[in-house]
Amino acid sequence: MAGKKNWYFADGYLPEKINNGPMEAHEALMFLNPNAEDATATVTVYFSDRDPLPTFKVAVPAKRVIAIRLDHPAETGGNAIPLLTQYALGIESTVPIVCQFGRVDTTQNANAYYVGVGWAE
Amino acid sequence: MAGKKNWYFADGYLPEKINNGPMEAHEALMFLNPNAEDATATVTVYFSDRDPLPTFKVAVPAKRVIAIRLDHPAETGGNAIPLLTQYALGIESTVPIVCQFGRVDTTQNANAYYVGVGWAE
Amino acid sequence: MAGKKNWYFADGYLPEKINNGPMEAHEALMFLNPNAEDATATVTVYFSDRDPLPTFKVAVPAKRVIAIRLDHPAETGGNAIPLLTQYALGIESTVPIVCQFGRVDTTQNANAYYVGVGWAE
Amino acid sequence: MAGKKNWYFADGYLPEKINNGPMEAHEALMFLNPNAEDATATVTVYFSDRDPLPTFKVAVPAKRVIAIRLDHPAETGGNAIPLLTQYALGIESTVPIVCQFGRVDTTQNANAYYVGVGWAE
Repeated sequence: MAGKKNWYFADGYLPEKINNGPMEAHEALMFLNPNAEDATATVTVYFSDRDPLPTFKVAVPAKRVIAIRLDHPAETGGNAIPLLTQYALGIESTVPIVCQFGRVDTTQNANAYYVGVGWAE
Repeated sequence: MAGKKNWYFADGYLPEKINNGPMEAHEALMFLNPNAEDATATVTVYFSDRDPLPTFKVAVPAKRVIAIRLDHPAETGGNAIPLLTQYALGIESTVPIVCQFGRVDTTQNANAYYVGVGWAE
Repeated sequence: MAGKKNWYFADGYLPEKINNGPMEAHEALMFLNPNAEDATATVTVYFSDRDPLPTFKVAVPAKRVIAIRLDHPAETGGNAIPLLTQYALGIESTVPIVCQFGRVDTTQNANAYYVGVGWAE
Repeated sequence: MAGKKNWYFADGYLPEKINNGPMEAHEALMFLNPNAEDATATVTVYFSDRDPLPTFKVAVPAKRVIAIRLDHPAETGGNAIPLLTQYALGIESTVPIVCQFGRVDTTQNANAYYVGVGWAE
């Protein structure tokens, strides 16, 4: 099966929701499951000065890519990730998958993208 | 031979073609074949809520880099990838290659680049 | 334990602090320790035409992510990294960790992000 | 020794030199040699429809990071890489190193960064 079961993204930082144009400022986490077996991913949110949030689970069906909004508490297990706060992500999946992290920043008059470079094992 | 036969990019999202200046909003996939043998790459496009598109093939001659536009159906096997829709890519090559994914977003008054971080095996 | 003990980022270049809006131009280095054991990271700053700076240490507690500002000498062992100068980073940790490098550039009227792609072993 | 001897960057595309503000539009390649032994890197520039350029060499002393401008023929072996043309890079080093590729685009009123994600072996 293709992919890895454990992914880490060290640099999360939710931008302020100002100057939103056609796109709203946000961060997202993408899970690609290229395999024939459904996956369940368990996500941990780390901070600098406190314990991680309670973990939450994401279903990633076979042959699908699932995106979650990290600024929507309903998609992060009901616990909000605070804005303008350093955080990091760990993902543990039951089946190998491929993850990607992205940010859209609208703080100024033009969008800026930031891509999180994951480390997998 | 240098490279890998299997590549995955988990975060595709074709931007709207608005405010295009010297560059048109698009996403592209690059295939570098640094080896002495020609390669054929088979590309799968994954979605969140439906089956993947029929796969399409890309010829990548020895010692060449080939770029395809993901917003041009003629370059994705005749099937259009819809705009503003989460998708992902899987590439399987007959010969090891090196792939890269990129986006140019012109939604606002300045270009924004997004790079897809691939995972290879 | 998850992560790697040695990380390298080849492209550091502190931007000028001009046109700062809600965000100040800077570069930062993030250290995620997803493991149960505290880590100490030793950082080396390389240049093109002179010897590296004296190394400095960063404490990365278990289950925490730590960010340091590379434009704040107090966070780089008391030695300033000069602006607009090519540099690179090496990190050696006592425990496996996951690192990420990022830049916010405010040289013109919109923020631009640059992400450093690390190499780990 | 830390690093890899072979690096590949699949997406090079020199931007037009227009609207240059404090930064000039360009692409650059960075070579970090964290080891105690000097390295010599041999660079190949690949294209879509023609043979690669003659290779050129870059000296990367021990404990140094070297940056070359890809839009300066004097730094690419005397052969110019044409603007607005897809190309790719291969690097072969005598000693393990860590490479990074970056682009500054000034096509519109704000800088945009693009980072090349390398593949190493």
